[in-house]
Amino acid sequence: MVTDSFLNHIEQLRFEINEKLQSFPLDSEPKYIYDPIKYIMDGKGKRLRPILVNLVGTVYGASKEDLLNAGLAVELLHNFTLVHDDIMDQDNLRHGKATVHKKWDESTAILAGDGIYAIAQILITKVKTNPLKAVEAFNKATLYVCEGQAYDKEFEHNHGIVLDQYLTMIKKKTGWMIGFSAELGGILGDQPASVINELQSYGLNLGIAFQIQDDILEIFSDAKSMGKSLGSDLIAGKQTILTVLARQNDEIGWKQIWDETKNRDIQVTIEKLREYFDENGILKSAKNMAKKYTEAAKNNLQIIPKEKRAQLEQLTEFVWKRKK
Amino acid sequence: MVTDSFLNHIEQLRFEINEKLQSFPLDSEPKYIYDPIKYIMDGKGKRLRPILVNLVGTVYGASKEDLLNAGLAVELLHNFTLVHDDIMDQDNLRHGKATVHKKWDESTAILAGDGIYAIAQILITKVKTNPLKAVEAFNKATLYVCEGQAYDKEFEHNHGIVLDQYLTMIKKKTGWMIGFSAELGGILGDQPASVINELQSYGLNLGIAFQIQDDILEIFSDAKSMGKSLGSDLIAGKQTILTVLARQNDEIGWKQIWDETKNRDIQVTIEKLREYFDENGILKSAKNMAKKYTEAAKNNLQIIPKEKRAQLEQLTEFVWKRKK
Repeated sequence: MVTDSFLNHIEQLRFEINEKLQSFPLDSEPKYIYDPIKYIMDGKGKRLRPILVNLVGTVYGASKEDLLNAGLAVELLHNFTLVHDDIMDQDNLRHGKATVHKKWDESTAILAGDGIYAIAQILITKVKTNPLKAVEAFNKATLYVCEGQAYDKEFEHNHGIVLDQYLTMIKKKTGWMIGFSAELGGILGDQPASVINELQSYGLNLGIAFQIQDDILEIFSDAKSMGKSLGSDLIAGKQTILTVLARQNDEIGWKQIWDETKNRDIQVTIEKLREYFDENGILKSAKNMAKKYTEAAKNNLQIIPKEKRAQLEQLTEFVWKRKK
Repeated sequence: MVTDSFLNHIEQLRFEINEKLQSFPLDSEPKYIYDPIKYIMDGKGKRLRPILVNLVGTVYGASKEDLLNAGLAVELLHNFTLVHDDIMDQDNLRHGKATVHKKWDESTAILAGDGIYAIAQILITKVKTNPLKAVEAFNKATLYVCEGQAYDKEFEHNHGIVLDQYLTMIKKKTGWMIGFSAELGGILGDQPASVINELQSYGLNLGIAFQIQDDILEIFSDAKSMGKSLGSDLIAGKQTILTVLARQNDEIGWKQIWDETKNRDIQVTIEKLREYFDENGILKSAKNMAKKYTEAAKNNLQIIPKEKRAQLEQLTEFVWKRKK
């Protein structure tokens, strides 16, 4: 059960992270790069990754300073990938605000993303406990998230992509960095490899569940909660859990629906797709899959001493139940 | 004097670096990111930065393995900035080959650049001597090169930019990374801060001289040697040592020439500008300035024991005399 006290706790963590990002010491010149970087640091976000670093690290008594530097590093790494992905995907809205390439231009967004990444690197190098291990895991996560985005682009408009390929993509694009966030908590808490690996698996499973949920919410939530237009991934020809399962379930029927929605009003399209996914059991299958990964994540948590597990159990439940 | 034996030595180093880059172990999937990364690693380049790491590190007995990893890391960091800069500046040719965004598209080039940077980070983290110092200096250099590129973009088409601003820009955009390459040789040779700082100054001065030379060659060399079209920076409204000095020398006269060259055939423009820079002493002032920084670099080299200084003295001379 997700308690009010847990919700208050992560709200407090989110508040602290936002405050640190907003007051982050940055030069004012050159404005060409620091104005957009400030804009990004002022943005909203769930802050799931630094919250995860904090909750796992706290279990193992990691230092507050390390958790802060590492948490900010992970959040900025995530933001760097978002800024560049938004250019590649031509997304104009992120967390309810214009994306950097939309507010400025693509050159500015490329460079601001690069700068944010360099700052993230500077922060991760500052951790005092196992800095080299932390930096190595950080670099591996970065390369994997690039590979995941590469699959995402490669799979666009490809109607031959099957579930396994989709899972490979989201493991790298979303799962690995959430896995890394949990792993980092263990590294900063100076845990042995066996514990760190299990924490990594926990985060990976949680991340896969998170992405599947994200794909569902992109169609079944509302634009206001999501802070971006609904259905934009689908329209961009992205592979999502819903399209992959629909294709696997009834290729011909799905192609028919998909072709019918072309050039329709987006709201009509979304209504029609919701109906199709619901009536054909696709939504249910997708939810079951998210549940399966959530359960696997919960099992991984058994590596943590029972009396210290509650917060992360609640986080897992919280991610599973989220509406945005 | 630059001896044949020195030229053979750096040719050998260049050969080894190219070989390591061409045979660098990379996954084959996803092709979306690894095909362009292989293409970049196959590219040509002067390899000045890894050569510098090698020559400085060898003076101080750094390990061959560290010098290799660090040299590749620095070269890939440089390549990452080139791939992204080429998008921002819409340059279509680099070292005689189509740039990544031209051969593929901008999304591919953004992501391939990010991937190359992640690989560079993985490599620098592998050094055995003072890895954290090396990584810290690497990150600082990355942020500075981003700041330099930001100034470069900010100053485009701005006819109010003066020499000091130009120098701030090239120090960060070009100078710092060459300074960092020399510094890295000292870090890997486990030298004290006083030596490392002087090595950094050496590279910084060399880098500033290098960029001034580059600005001159962009107008006074030939396209074949440069592997890119002449005058492209000028046409893109970039600040170069020649335009900044011409403006400082005779603002009205320079504006007249500049306006006259607009919309002219590029070959005619270049001829006309060469004539102007030559006849008005601008070329001479620019060369003197490059010489001044070259001399400063040579002075910095006195930190190195006399009997071990010859190779770097020749490198300094070589950069000063280069024709491409």
